[in-house]
Amino acid sequence: MNIPSVFWIIPLASICALGMAWVFFRQMMKEEEGTARMKEIAGHVRRGAMAYLKQQYKVVTLVFIVLALIFAFMAYVLHVQNPWVPFAFLTGGFFSGLAGFFGMKTATYASARTANAARSGLDRGLKIAFRSGAVMGLVVVGLGLLDIALWFIVLSYFYSGDHMALVTITTTMLTFGMGASTQALFARVGGGIYTKAADVGADLVGKVEANIPEDDPRNPATIADNVGDNVGDVAGMGADLYESYCGSILSTAAIGATAFAINADMQLKAVIAPMIIAAVGIFLSLLGIYLVRTKEGATMKELLHSLSLGTNVAAVLIAIATFCILYLMQIENWVGVSFSVLSGLAAGVVIGQATEYYTSHSYKPTQKIAEASQTGPATVIIKGIGTGMISTMIPVVTISVAIMLSYLFANNFDLSMSAESISKGLYGIGIAAVGMLSTLGITLATDAYGPIADNAGGNAEMSELGEEVRQRTDALDALGNTTAATGKGFAIGSAALTALALLASYVEEIKIAMQRAVNEGQTFIDNAGNMFNPSTANMIDFMDFFQVNLMNPKVLVGAFIGGMAAFLFCGLTMGAVGRAAQTMVNEVRRQFSEIKGILEGKATPDYGRCVEISTRSAQREMVFPSLLAIIIPIVVGVLLGVGGVMGLLVGGLTTGFTLAVFMANSGGAWDNAKKMVEEGHFGGKGTECHKATIVGDTVGDPFKDTSGPSLNILIKLMSMVSIVMAGLTVACIKQ
Amino acid sequence: MNIPSVFWIIPLASICALGMAWVFFRQMMKEEEGTARMKEIAGHVRRGAMAYLKQQYKVVTLVFIVLALIFAFMAYVLHVQNPWVPFAFLTGGFFSGLAGFFGMKTATYASARTANAARSGLDRGLKIAFRSGAVMGLVVVGLGLLDIALWFIVLSYFYSGDHMALVTITTTMLTFGMGASTQALFARVGGGIYTKAADVGADLVGKVEANIPEDDPRNPATIADNVGDNVGDVAGMGADLYESYCGSILSTAAIGATAFAINADMQLKAVIAPMIIAAVGIFLSLLGIYLVRTKEGATMKELLHSLSLGTNVAAVLIAIATFCILYLMQIENWVGVSFSVLSGLAAGVVIGQATEYYTSHSYKPTQKIAEASQTGPATVIIKGIGTGMISTMIPVVTISVAIMLSYLFANNFDLSMSAESISKGLYGIGIAAVGMLSTLGITLATDAYGPIADNAGGNAEMSELGEEVRQRTDALDALGNTTAATGKGFAIGSAALTALALLASYVEEIKIAMQRAVNEGQTFIDNAGNMFNPSTANMIDFMDFFQVNLMNPKVLVGAFIGGMAAFLFCGLTMGAVGRAAQTMVNEVRRQFSEIKGILEGKATPDYGRCVEISTRSAQREMVFPSLLAIIIPIVVGVLLGVGGVMGLLVGGLTTGFTLAVFMANSGGAWDNAKKMVEEGHFGGKGTECHKATIVGDTVGDPFKDTSGPSLNILIKLMSMVSIVMAGLTVACIKQ
Repeated sequence: MNIPSVFWIIPLASICALGMAWVFFRQMMKEEEGTARMKEIAGHVRRGAMAYLKQQYKVVTLVFIVLALIFAFMAYVLHVQNPWVPFAFLTGGFFSGLAGFFGMKTATYASARTANAARSGLDRGLKIAFRSGAVMGLVVVGLGLLDIALWFIVLSYFYSGDHMALVTITTTMLTFGMGASTQALFARVGGGIYTKAADVGADLVGKVEANIPEDDPRNPATIADNVGDNVGDVAGMGADLYESYCGSILSTAAIGATAFAINADMQLKAVIAPMIIAAVGIFLSLLGIYLVRTKEGATMKELLHSLSLGTNVAAVLIAIATFCILYLMQIENWVGVSFSVLSGLAAGVVIGQATEYYTSHSYKPTQKIAEASQTGPATVIIKGIGTGMISTMIPVVTISVAIMLSYLFANNFDLSMSAESISKGLYGIGIAAVGMLSTLGITLATDAYGPIADNAGGNAEMSELGEEVRQRTDALDALGNTTAATGKGFAIGSAALTALALLASYVEEIKIAMQRAVNEGQTFIDNAGNMFNPSTANMIDFMDFFQVNLMNPKVLVGAFIGGMAAFLFCGLTMGAVGRAAQTMVNEVRRQFSEIKGILEGKATPDYGRCVEISTRSAQREMVFPSLLAIIIPIVVGVLLGVGGVMGLLVGGLTTGFTLAVFMANSGGAWDNAKKMVEEGHFGGKGTECHKATIVGDTVGDPFKDTSGPSLNILIKLMSMVSIVMAGLTVACIKQ
Repeated sequence: MNIPSVFWIIPLASICALGMAWVFFRQMMKEEEGTARMKEIAGHVRRGAMAYLKQQYKVVTLVFIVLALIFAFMAYVLHVQNPWVPFAFLTGGFFSGLAGFFGMKTATYASARTANAARSGLDRGLKIAFRSGAVMGLVVVGLGLLDIALWFIVLSYFYSGDHMALVTITTTMLTFGMGASTQALFARVGGGIYTKAADVGADLVGKVEANIPEDDPRNPATIADNVGDNVGDVAGMGADLYESYCGSILSTAAIGATAFAINADMQLKAVIAPMIIAAVGIFLSLLGIYLVRTKEGATMKELLHSLSLGTNVAAVLIAIATFCILYLMQIENWVGVSFSVLSGLAAGVVIGQATEYYTSHSYKPTQKIAEASQTGPATVIIKGIGTGMISTMIPVVTISVAIMLSYLFANNFDLSMSAESISKGLYGIGIAAVGMLSTLGITLATDAYGPIADNAGGNAEMSELGEEVRQRTDALDALGNTTAATGKGFAIGSAALTALALLASYVEEIKIAMQRAVNEGQTFIDNAGNMFNPSTANMIDFMDFFQVNLMNPKVLVGAFIGGMAAFLFCGLTMGAVGRAAQTMVNEVRRQFSEIKGILEGKATPDYGRCVEISTRSAQREMVFPSLLAIIIPIVVGVLLGVGGVMGLLVGGLTTGFTLAVFMANSGGAWDNAKKMVEEGHFGGKGTECHKATIVGDTVGDPFKDTSGPSLNILIKLMSMVSIVMAGLTVACIKQ
């Protein structure tokens, strides 16, 4: 198949991103790391983080090898699987892991340098932390587009000629999304358990019982806590967003290939369009990153302005650029499709603002949670859970409106529900997700720089650099939280849209699997007793053939299981954090009582033991919930067929999305309610109110950093597994 | 239409139930109420409870009048509604309220008498409390069947002749289910807020801050707490189960009318069968109640045995009786349908046992929560939430298996998904729910006697009857908790099955509304451009016409909104309890500091203020969430049509069911973890561990007694509203 010349902008953008990431990394490395003590602390954290990642990748590699062998068996022996799948799966996992690795390596080098820079001023600290965050953002988008471009080139070489070529290419590429999702889930769950076990353990004994401040060097869990920020919030987030980024592009390309299958020229354009938007997004992200300028002695307000300027300019420009790109490419109904992207972007902003409203202590909901601390920890928890649950309304309604709008814009307001109108509408939903994630290069930078600033604060505290430096790193952290809201809205919103797009891809994979079966002599008979021909059937015909309607008990049971899976998964990860945290608490208590002089600062705590506990707990606890996410869709597919799987995916998506918003917002609100009290409200630090809000914050830790964010991946991983296992599901129809 | 003679067993059973309830009530009233102090306390509680109920019914009456007027307008002016609806709606609400009222009246008279009887022995206390609980159980089933029988007789008189008569009769009767659901939701939400505001307030200041025991007369919130048990756990539960009971029978009858429409004789049998099973269930419940015998000086174990004997015998006999009834009636495929009922009963037992496993401190999960108290309240909360979420697995899988089995048994293992096979399968699902609730007369007795024993304990404590009496009432309470597990499994399981059955009734109502529109000259054109004739269309045709499949964005958006509605509703009720509890805490603190000598027992607290706070809070806070449950399905119906509504109902059901199980089990586990510590584990009463578990229990209060149980009603109310508003939804298709 001929690759059009416009395609080459995609690898170009990817190489630019990786090149600039390298430049930023070198710039950061040239900075001073500070005093000997600072270097020592940073070294501890770096070694702990790398040791963890090594351990993590060992376990995950094993899982990947087993899965790849299963796929190979399915492909080469059973012939129910595309022969490229094992390789695509492996590269997805590999690149996703690489993105996490580079991001974390940068972060662990950057934190001491940020702390050191913060000694001379807020602006210098911001520059180092932000540029280091940008390394992560650029590595994720660079590796993502690189993987996509390479596979597209390779597969275009092998498949050519017929109009089915692009459908086969795009659906095959989708399967590397499963590799990325699997890696991401392990990274999020493992990292999330690690970081929160350490955090909860450090807080409960250090802050509440021993009354020593956060990151105090006397606390044995403090190094583990800082390691955790890197492995959970940096490496975990990197793998997570790599998966979201690729998933949105790949699923949209796959729908494009089917929606425009009757016109070969338009089909190719529709497949490439999301990649081009992403490529242009990289250049706009770079522009945005350069807009984040820091002048010497800048005030907090000026820095905030400059930071939001970067992300906002990139977001506005991508909206405009989309119209230009789609017009220049002469995509069918380019105005409508552009408006679809605009709907997605608008939804992301609204969800981000709603998140901000429900979790920032500048607004009533979080203030009320802080106020509830006057009546003790129980009312803090009740209020926080209530607020989190209520906060699901705006995001769900917004995403619902965005779904309808991006659908209707892309298919010219056609509600006829013909197969063609549905495909085109779904293409609009998918490309809206691509638009939201296209400026990930900069939005991820504002997200990733938070943990770097946090770690810089930890380093400053442990190196006893004085209150002023700590205040500056805290200010940097707070700055990031404010600007990160939009990025979070984009991330969660795009996950929902991508999952919907994947639903369509699932039907497409079932179609391909059935065609394969027909080619091997299998026949399918529909309810009326007629022969069912998958190659001429459209999406609606498949819905009819498999009776994927809401009166089918298999669909209903699937939906039940999907909703339950989200809860079960959260329960397991919450339980894991609880268990690991208890072990940590006991260890810290043991050290406090057994190591003499530790609380007076005369003896050094055994940091290594705590790092080990977190590592071991995370490794042990991450496997079961993650494997569950892979096993459930397979079992449902085998037992309940296509209807059951689609029910499962819809149940998992709707419940999972809502549960994720609830958990993230409750957690965020508790965190900020605590900060509000720490700023002196309701008595301030050390009071009963403060302790009550610490309980809230501690409960919120696994909510917002372990279970909540993992749900986004869970939803998509279940879709990816279903897609990759479509052959098996169809094979079960045979009997 | 001719009513067959077997029908008369239904009003007969209903009158028997009401008569026996009257006998038990008179027996209880003859008992001594104890000392003057005991009478005084009981009087306080009774007056508080009645005053609350009066206030509650005022507000609810207003809501009912408004809704009835709207329905009347729709029926008589717009002609998009059945003319019987306003009346059916009102009677459903009236009878449901009546059931709550009688139950509560009995309970408030019984508590002091139970306490007084417990002075002379455990067995005498059990007898009074249990028989009083039975009054409630019998009133609920008696009034339920009475309402059903009366409407059936009335409507049979007006509609006769054609095979559509029974369809019209049963779907019309369904609308009185909406009245019952509306009343139930207000009762559950209002009562739930009342009781938990008082409970949380009393515990937080009394137990945690002032270190005085539960129900201590020095605590100003203690009367309000005892009033709360009556208005929430008795009146609320009565209205709730009245709704479940009628809902399951009515929805099954409605499906029976359509599933067997081609054979007039079988159709009538299928409609009456669920009512007959319920009627026989009443006689078996009465038998079971008489089996609960107490001999003088019986040990705890003997009483437990006698209590479970009653419920178990009733459950086993109803299973056997179902086979006989369906055989004697010569219902088509009577063996299969009987096995459907058996599947439901088995599922109820499994769910009950799973609930027991996850919430009783005889088992590991709750023990682990108690153990987590050693590391403070935060880990107790994390563990409890984790356990609750994990505990959703068994109930969801069980109910999924029950759905598939009762479906397949009833339609002879026909998975063809033809309209007829689906209808017959759904009939099996509905009748399984009826079977589970048929022995409600006795299962509700074991449930309702819990709060009576609890209140008796409160009375004993406040009347200073001594430790021994209190221990006996606590033992009675614990006894009830053990046997109530099965009842709870039946209640929650049947709610899910009934909701599925209501989904089918919704499609039927849409059909009727479309026929009405066609009769008025309206035409409906399907996607292929052909005229759509609702009167000859079957269920699958409707699925096709409205494209109720999982690729329709309206269905997906509906499912999103449904899942969110469950969370939003819980969030609002949690928030309401939090706010009310804070007001209560502040009031109790104020009294402790302002009323001199209150803690030394020298001054009487102002109980009235606390009762007033709970009443006012509950009234103010219950309206918004309850109205939301009515408004959401109407709005979705108008905006997204039939597909959107069905998505909404499925999303609400799957998410709501799982969320309800999670909240109920987390709450139950926290409660028992606290009890375990109070029994002396991990240091026992008064230690830090105890305080940590009290925080857990306090958070669990609104989980298990406000938000969780309201969800069951919410799910069904949304279905009922959709059914009643089907005419409006169809009218919106016109434009």
